[in-house]
Amino acid sequence: MGTKLPKGFTANGIHSGLKKKRKDLSLFFSSELCEFAALFTKNVVKAAPIIVGEDILERSKGLRAVIVNSGNANCMTGDEGIKDAKRMCSITAKALGVKENEVFVSSTGIIGRRMDLTPVEKGMKDLVGGLSVDGFQLAAEGIMTTDKFMKVATAEFKLNGKKVIISGVTKGAGMVKPEMATMLAYILTDASISKSALLNLLKEVNDETFNAITVDGDMSTNDTVVLLANGKAGNRKIESGDSGYLLFKEHLADVMTRLAKMIVEDGEGASRIMDIKVKGAGTKKEARQVAGAIADSLLLKCAVHGGDPNWGRVAAAAGAAGVDFDPDKMEIALDNVVFFRNAKCIVPSKAKRNKVFKGKEVEITVDLHEGQCDARMWASDMTREYIKINSFYST
Amino acid sequence: MGTKLPKGFTANGIHSGLKKKRKDLSLFFSSELCEFAALFTKNVVKAAPIIVGEDILERSKGLRAVIVNSGNANCMTGDEGIKDAKRMCSITAKALGVKENEVFVSSTGIIGRRMDLTPVEKGMKDLVGGLSVDGFQLAAEGIMTTDKFMKVATAEFKLNGKKVIISGVTKGAGMVKPEMATMLAYILTDASISKSALLNLLKEVNDETFNAITVDGDMSTNDTVVLLANGKAGNRKIESGDSGYLLFKEHLADVMTRLAKMIVEDGEGASRIMDIKVKGAGTKKEARQVAGAIADSLLLKCAVHGGDPNWGRVAAAAGAAGVDFDPDKMEIALDNVVFFRNAKCIVPSKAKRNKVFKGKEVEITVDLHEGQCDARMWASDMTREYIKINSFYST
Repeated sequence: MGTKLPKGFTANGIHSGLKKKRKDLSLFFSSELCEFAALFTKNVVKAAPIIVGEDILERSKGLRAVIVNSGNANCMTGDEGIKDAKRMCSITAKALGVKENEVFVSSTGIIGRRMDLTPVEKGMKDLVGGLSVDGFQLAAEGIMTTDKFMKVATAEFKLNGKKVIISGVTKGAGMVKPEMATMLAYILTDASISKSALLNLLKEVNDETFNAITVDGDMSTNDTVVLLANGKAGNRKIESGDSGYLLFKEHLADVMTRLAKMIVEDGEGASRIMDIKVKGAGTKKEARQVAGAIADSLLLKCAVHGGDPNWGRVAAAAGAAGVDFDPDKMEIALDNVVFFRNAKCIVPSKAKRNKVFKGKEVEITVDLHEGQCDARMWASDMTREYIKINSFYST
Repeated sequence: MGTKLPKGFTANGIHSGLKKKRKDLSLFFSSELCEFAALFTKNVVKAAPIIVGEDILERSKGLRAVIVNSGNANCMTGDEGIKDAKRMCSITAKALGVKENEVFVSSTGIIGRRMDLTPVEKGMKDLVGGLSVDGFQLAAEGIMTTDKFMKVATAEFKLNGKKVIISGVTKGAGMVKPEMATMLAYILTDASISKSALLNLLKEVNDETFNAITVDGDMSTNDTVVLLANGKAGNRKIESGDSGYLLFKEHLADVMTRLAKMIVEDGEGASRIMDIKVKGAGTKKEARQVAGAIADSLLLKCAVHGGDPNWGRVAAAAGAAGVDFDPDKMEIALDNVVFFRNAKCIVPSKAKRNKVFKGKEVEITVDLHEGQCDARMWASDMTREYIKINSFYST
């Protein structure tokens, strides 16, 4: 099911009235104070909750709750927007009986319109009253915008003989690119983890998961990933680099990879997922740069959508990445069929060729043969449906 | 008409058989040896004609002719591709009775397939036989790929009492972004210009025209701009910085701006043109970077297509440009209606708002209020038609 909450956590999601019909307000709550780590968008235009969140990250000793609304991004709303974001924290804190700086806030939706806090105030009693160990799905629904399906994932494993649960929830679906897409993601765990280990874990895993996906190359103003650990599992506290760290990291990566791939799968209008593997780059950064250029090439995304094994567009995108390499050494394979190697095109049999780019998930492998560094990214293809969604999404 | 050739130039375009039906082979010819300058794609994957062209640029004392084919890009074709490109020069040179390194070659079309030179050889006699002072349109047709209309522009003016003509021709239409889009452009003039002045002119004007347009953010492997000057106008030779230089530059900019805008207008599937003006950046480079990020934002391109004044997407795109600025100082206007200023959204009257993004050409102005540097770019919007064209363009 993937909808189980870790020990000590409850959640809920309701329709408060920020949106017309669908759920628009979600709450995650922990019975104990949580250690936490958070990563934010690199966009210089930061939404008010990001500014407030950065402040909470700096000042707060721990979190008890996360409040999230959809329908309004509370972005480009000036000082009033910051006041509104803080007010969301205080309204929530009051209803829960916790401190204001123990509540973390996120928003997603339209940019440039001031938040209407009346529905939040009016809905808060129901939201808190309905908190439940079974409420994870409801909360997952409340953070959705154009998402077609809710995105949750859970891992369960033993750590020093204690059962540990990691539960993650995220939303897509447009404005998704590395350096934090429009995405909100909340990862909850009952493991006991030191603050420094928590931040390392989140950074390391985020680079290979949420920072390795792209839908349309747009970077949002509200992106946020938060990891909360309340320690209720009773394991020996995880510290950076110990054996518990490695085991936890493996399961965290599993949860976050599944969530990241769901975002791509639900990329606005997406019909196929591109799994892009760049090998043999001189540096990790160059490998990521080439993978990113391939992932963001509109022409290639269109070819993938059309089921057309146009490896020339892969070559052109890689060559335009701003990385210096010798194209004669490059090797290009699509769905494991080699199309270019040793400066020569290879014409596969018609039978082989006809199978390329026909599945729901397609594989694009580029080996630069320049060095030892690899990178992997996931991206959605580009369809007329995406254009339709984003051309007529009313402001 | 815009289809007049400068003195001493003839041109022709034919269907040779590289493509099924449409014209696919074009020739520009000068009765005199021309000074010339050329700029090429920055993609590290360079098509064979680019490699050959760079060599000609270095070694040749002057050009007499330019041969261009569409239907095959002669790219990713290894050493054989380079031989084929050179052969195109020698076949042309022989038919014209000029030296091989006086012929410049370009190709556009599909990547990764070896050129079939038989149609070129067979068609050469007709191509040369049909050279005419009225052949500019035919040649313009022969370089088209998915272009919906031919793109030519002419300027005529007096220099030291002598009539000077500048005639330019270009092709789009996908894979268009700064640093040379998929574009081929040939600018012919009968002015007398020194070699060094010619290169300066081309570089300066190119930065503000062909390097200031974007359709889909993809950069091609074959981009080429060539400027040929045969001196037949009889003006006093233009040198860098003299009064003739400035006058010539003004008219060259006029011709190249018109051609660049035609490419955007004919961007694959384009329904509107975005005219993007970034003001008040700290450096020219930063101004260009912000303009480029706005020009390439898929979400914004969709909003423009839908006629939706979604200025929040302008803000988000600018903020993601990788340039540090204070978003509270930013001012955003769409079609001269201000939507954000002094950290506050401004809600225009409904009448005003309803006129925004409704014309064929829309204006997006962002003033960062950080410094004195400006940049201007043109971009097409994004439509379902683009996706259709590029999803089902057969390899």
